[in-house]
Amino acid sequence: MSLPALSFEQLQHYEPLALRQGIAAGRYQGHTSGLGKGRVQANIVILPGDWANEFLRYCTLNRQACPILDVTEPGDPYFRNLGNAIDIRHEVPRYRVFRDGELSEEPLDIEHLWQDDMVAFALGCSFSFEQPLLEAGIRLRHIDLGRNIAMFRTNIDTRPTARLSGKMVVTMRPMKAAAAIQAIQITGRMPNVHGAPVHIGDPSLIGIQSLDKPDYGDAVPIEADEIPVFWACGVTPQSVVQASRPPLCITHAPGCMLVTDLWNSAL
Amino acid sequence: MSLPALSFEQLQHYEPLALRQGIAAGRYQGHTSGLGKGRVQANIVILPGDWANEFLRYCTLNRQACPILDVTEPGDPYFRNLGNAIDIRHEVPRYRVFRDGELSEEPLDIEHLWQDDMVAFALGCSFSFEQPLLEAGIRLRHIDLGRNIAMFRTNIDTRPTARLSGKMVVTMRPMKAAAAIQAIQITGRMPNVHGAPVHIGDPSLIGIQSLDKPDYGDAVPIEADEIPVFWACGVTPQSVVQASRPPLCITHAPGCMLVTDLWNSAL
Repeated sequence: MSLPALSFEQLQHYEPLALRQGIAAGRYQGHTSGLGKGRVQANIVILPGDWANEFLRYCTLNRQACPILDVTEPGDPYFRNLGNAIDIRHEVPRYRVFRDGELSEEPLDIEHLWQDDMVAFALGCSFSFEQPLLEAGIRLRHIDLGRNIAMFRTNIDTRPTARLSGKMVVTMRPMKAAAAIQAIQITGRMPNVHGAPVHIGDPSLIGIQSLDKPDYGDAVPIEADEIPVFWACGVTPQSVVQASRPPLCITHAPGCMLVTDLWNSAL
Repeated sequence: MSLPALSFEQLQHYEPLALRQGIAAGRYQGHTSGLGKGRVQANIVILPGDWANEFLRYCTLNRQACPILDVTEPGDPYFRNLGNAIDIRHEVPRYRVFRDGELSEEPLDIEHLWQDDMVAFALGCSFSFEQPLLEAGIRLRHIDLGRNIAMFRTNIDTRPTARLSGKMVVTMRPMKAAAAIQAIQITGRMPNVHGAPVHIGDPSLIGIQSLDKPDYGDAVPIEADEIPVFWACGVTPQSVVQASRPPLCITHAPGCMLVTDLWNSAL
């Protein structure tokens, strides 16, 4: 009965709707970087009941780290504001299920886990602002080197709710001063994908000991005439939620994002 | 026991904290336009339980009309992200209480109505962007004429939640083309107070029959070489909430806003 698997190379030519249909049919389970023809990719967090309500308050108070692109009604598995209605139970290549804050499984579909009090959140991702930076002629070293972005825990407190609190996680991109100034202006115009940087320059001022040792992702070298530029990172809400150990939380697996119908340039 | 009333003229010299203390002591019950020494004034909506959670989803999906500056935890009467902690039960000059969508009373304090599942929302207001417009040399006719801003119901659908839906309400300011272009750029940089306009030019394209007959506020004349410029308005969430008739909803009385410690220029 099942259709043959689709390769990454095949999928690079797919429009987002066809891509998601292939994913929903179980024909692709890999990462989405470079897929979707320039459309917005979203981080996914799914929580039941009261945890969902509190998570929405947390994101509202911490918009730079947690920019919400869409939120569903409780029990409704469809995102209705990301283009075609997207059934969040099927259209992510691979999910992660956390029980009491611990990773318990990585399913390809979550229909069997869906509950009628669940709320799904789509959060903006820094992939969306890298495209306009590249189009402005700014080189991004992690892309040039084919590495994952470097991410660091900081000493910057996020605004707490009753159960959700923690430090901000940031991404770092090294740039010459002129490029940094340009990047600040470009990303400052994109509040739905983290907005302007939260810090530039001396990493110790935000509690980062060494740029050689990122907490997540890969380190990249910095030249003597470059400044490190730090943006709030969508890993923040995921790490905060897991630290507070809700009974059940579902996210996308790292790199396996939801590909929406929105254009990056529309953010 | 009670202290003497404070006049509007006295209060114009008060810093926001002292102003709110005077209001909390019951010494002033009037409008706040021109008070607070340039600080942000916020629209207030207070809802219990499930209605609060749904209202937050509605605001998240309709950020231009419903820009949230702060949200409290359920039962916590303090705004914690608007400067000094603000007790929302006392620090608004005059409240409105709606029961099943109908205005039932206008108390000066709501301690007796507070419930442990209530959530308070502070929403941005277009007063905050009028100051930078004036500072850029843009004349605002309603201010020149000493009138209230003109507000209109449109045919623009907001994004619905289960019980909350409705058309967007907009404010209109007539401007010459050059000023309109400048105003679009200035307000586009202020997403926390409605952001860029939602429409310019022909009002019939957004369902407005006559600019002479605003649905709320006062009409202002438009010159032949001027363009009407329309911004999403914070009346939208209030009218949508009341139309859906929650059992209990508390707002500020018109013009009697919450004066925060935030600077308008920080938005």
